[in-house]
Amino acid sequence: MGEGRRLDTDPLDLEAFRRNAYALVDWVVDYLGGLEDRPVREPVRPGEVRAKLPGRAPEDPEAFDAVLADLDRVVAPGLTHWQHPGWFAYFPAQSSPPAILGELAAAGMGVQGMLWSTSPAATEIESHVLDWLVDLLGMPQEWKTTGAGGGVLQSGASASTHTALVVAREECLVRSGAGPKDMVAYTSSHAHSSIEKGARMAGYGHIRLLATDREFAARPDVLAATVTEDRRAGLAPAFVCSAVGTTGTTGVDPVRRFGEIARAEQMWHHVDAAYAGSAMICEEFRHHQDGLELVDSYTFNPHKWLATNLDCSVMWVADRRPLIEALSVLPPYLRNEASESGRVIDYRDWHGPLGRPFRALKLWFVLRCFGAAGLRRMIRTHVAWARELADRIDAHSKLATVAPTPFALVSFAHVDGNAATDELVDRINDDGRFYITASEAEGRRYARISVGSTWTSRTHVEALWDLIDAGA
Amino acid sequence: MGEGRRLDTDPLDLEAFRRNAYALVDWVVDYLGGLEDRPVREPVRPGEVRAKLPGRAPEDPEAFDAVLADLDRVVAPGLTHWQHPGWFAYFPAQSSPPAILGELAAAGMGVQGMLWSTSPAATEIESHVLDWLVDLLGMPQEWKTTGAGGGVLQSGASASTHTALVVAREECLVRSGAGPKDMVAYTSSHAHSSIEKGARMAGYGHIRLLATDREFAARPDVLAATVTEDRRAGLAPAFVCSAVGTTGTTGVDPVRRFGEIARAEQMWHHVDAAYAGSAMICEEFRHHQDGLELVDSYTFNPHKWLATNLDCSVMWVADRRPLIEALSVLPPYLRNEASESGRVIDYRDWHGPLGRPFRALKLWFVLRCFGAAGLRRMIRTHVAWARELADRIDAHSKLATVAPTPFALVSFAHVDGNAATDELVDRINDDGRFYITASEAEGRRYARISVGSTWTSRTHVEALWDLIDAGA
Repeated sequence: MGEGRRLDTDPLDLEAFRRNAYALVDWVVDYLGGLEDRPVREPVRPGEVRAKLPGRAPEDPEAFDAVLADLDRVVAPGLTHWQHPGWFAYFPAQSSPPAILGELAAAGMGVQGMLWSTSPAATEIESHVLDWLVDLLGMPQEWKTTGAGGGVLQSGASASTHTALVVAREECLVRSGAGPKDMVAYTSSHAHSSIEKGARMAGYGHIRLLATDREFAARPDVLAATVTEDRRAGLAPAFVCSAVGTTGTTGVDPVRRFGEIARAEQMWHHVDAAYAGSAMICEEFRHHQDGLELVDSYTFNPHKWLATNLDCSVMWVADRRPLIEALSVLPPYLRNEASESGRVIDYRDWHGPLGRPFRALKLWFVLRCFGAAGLRRMIRTHVAWARELADRIDAHSKLATVAPTPFALVSFAHVDGNAATDELVDRINDDGRFYITASEAEGRRYARISVGSTWTSRTHVEALWDLIDAGA
Repeated sequence: MGEGRRLDTDPLDLEAFRRNAYALVDWVVDYLGGLEDRPVREPVRPGEVRAKLPGRAPEDPEAFDAVLADLDRVVAPGLTHWQHPGWFAYFPAQSSPPAILGELAAAGMGVQGMLWSTSPAATEIESHVLDWLVDLLGMPQEWKTTGAGGGVLQSGASASTHTALVVAREECLVRSGAGPKDMVAYTSSHAHSSIEKGARMAGYGHIRLLATDREFAARPDVLAATVTEDRRAGLAPAFVCSAVGTTGTTGVDPVRRFGEIARAEQMWHHVDAAYAGSAMICEEFRHHQDGLELVDSYTFNPHKWLATNLDCSVMWVADRRPLIEALSVLPPYLRNEASESGRVIDYRDWHGPLGRPFRALKLWFVLRCFGAAGLRRMIRTHVAWARELADRIDAHSKLATVAPTPFALVSFAHVDGNAATDELVDRINDDGRFYITASEAEGRRYARISVGSTWTSRTHVEALWDLIDAGA
């Protein structure tokens, strides 16, 4: 042991670490097993958590016991419990035991996979697992790293979409000579906010939020007309995003039609399937993304609905060249033989960040510990429960769905209008056992029930329905 | 338990998880404790890791035993071991037992802190710990979340710097009406590649890599002259980055002088202290960043040299308003009472990503388990060892340092020139016990010894020196 770490309470003692880690594992087991006894959202006022913390960092080391005790005293009572079986809010941010183990293993190894050479296994397992997913999800074979394209893990769909926007901007610049201020990005008015934010961050002067049809799918005729109008105004259409499963209502844009327009207009075509992409592990959902051969990039988040902890977002490109051209900057301190051989992938060139943790490990653990069959069963169960709920809602005299349920999100409203819908949502949430969120589309308030927590069972869905039924 | 998870090998069985996690903890203890018996870089050829993996994902669940066995069969023999005590390459990517425990706790809770309301403790602990660090590192009090500014955790300095570049671009646009193509970003020719990459991603038309003095500090006279020239050419100077500890040689730009020029020219002034920022926990290094009151944003990575696992990068802003103005997009499905009250921080508005893991937990664990005194001792020990090495190098007839050693990086060359330097680096690395990297500055090859692995002791430094001495 070195002079740098002779502390009274030695944070580098590996036997102490073993004991502390066992104790923390026990804490996690108790936490996950005991979630049902807690409200989904702990009642906490702004500032209440901070008020429990000392004003200054400790000068001397504290024992891990004290830290562990604070998980119960400070942390858990200040959380909104995303892993609660009564979680029906937003979209899920799934976790699972295999994913937690993957995180632990990655943290334990502590490698940094910016280059192939800085940890070959980190790069190769990532490429391999994302190639596995191409087959598992029925994506085009060209998207494999063994083809012209390839997959890379990013922190989230926001990062993946932003990356696509940057590459599209560079492509448009080369093709048209236009500046970012004259470039236009197109997406559904129901698309996720990350498209607008990514376009803004990438410097696009214009973003068009396209009108949708009655099922909340963006309309190709509106896209075509808007592009024509923008060209007439001297602008440069550069990027179009098809959403497969919008955040508001899981609306599904017509990928093939958007792809045809994108090809004809020489725009980059990106698919945001952040939530719904996981469902493509089941063949019966793939018709929703017919037309993938007309797609340049695609993102989905295993950290939403594929049992994998945050953060873990897949980005595929059909052709990796423009991506690498746009993002590669090679300083002398990163030069190395493997990179110069051209026989390896250096993932630093596939996204904004340079340093990167070993994110693929948890995804690999999940695919192996669940098996494809286990993941399919989970997805199908969630969708079946959601559709059952949708049917009951439509059969209810006071309730009506406001959008289809292609996946596991039920969007519905009270027939008495916005106030009644908001009251119903509040009533459900005030109970404490469940958490659902509200949103708004075209001035209409609606409730969202997103079925997808790893730990949700039919019992929870039934209890939620009883509460809705009684409260409506 | 629900129908979705009745698998033969149930990945959701919490008792199985407990057993598996204990076994994995044991594996991590063995891995970290046994690193010295491995070469720092495992000898592995491109494709060798993938060749050990099946071509398709498993259809049925595998037992965790098989996964664990593959850490030894597939993963560990394919790694470059960043936590090895003989790690002297690049900069460190430190890990430590408390940080690993923090990762495990965060993964176990699986919360998503995009908004205060989606897990108040995740937001408040982050704000609080970053406020602690303002005091610990002697940063301006205004940078606290309780002041006008505040800190936020990002995935890395690349993301923090890119965020600063985007905000600077928006500020410049409002002020000057210029488009991104006419905007200019300024940084040292020895700055990290992330400045250039970030500027490119943010759409800047121009980046100026400024000439440095003999100690590899960017020259303020060159900055001033270049800005004047660019203004004369009709361009819009928007952003200047001071590096405190460049990647190549830990050169230190004159923060105060750059800040004065930035203020006079109405440019955003960002400090990239990705590596060296951690050293500021010791007062004696703070003179290197004199002038912080003239800084708009600052980034450093606890995941480099503050015992905290990847990814964990701090970004501070002196004034949070322009940041939030540039990055806030509020869709209806994220609206909530707490956000609308204005009394909470919603960190989604402080960076590109929306979803975010509970990164602050590991930093909190580290600060508590090491104590400020423990971290100071670690930093001082590393710097002392590096300076001892530098002195021995300068006393050696065949070797000479090529840059000062303000922190814990020693940059040196063989007096016989580039080929001799490269040969020496190869000889050291071929031994297997140590890993150092080479770089180049103004045509001169040099070797970099970065002292900073959590597990390095004086014995390792001595053994490395013996190897250098014998090989020179």
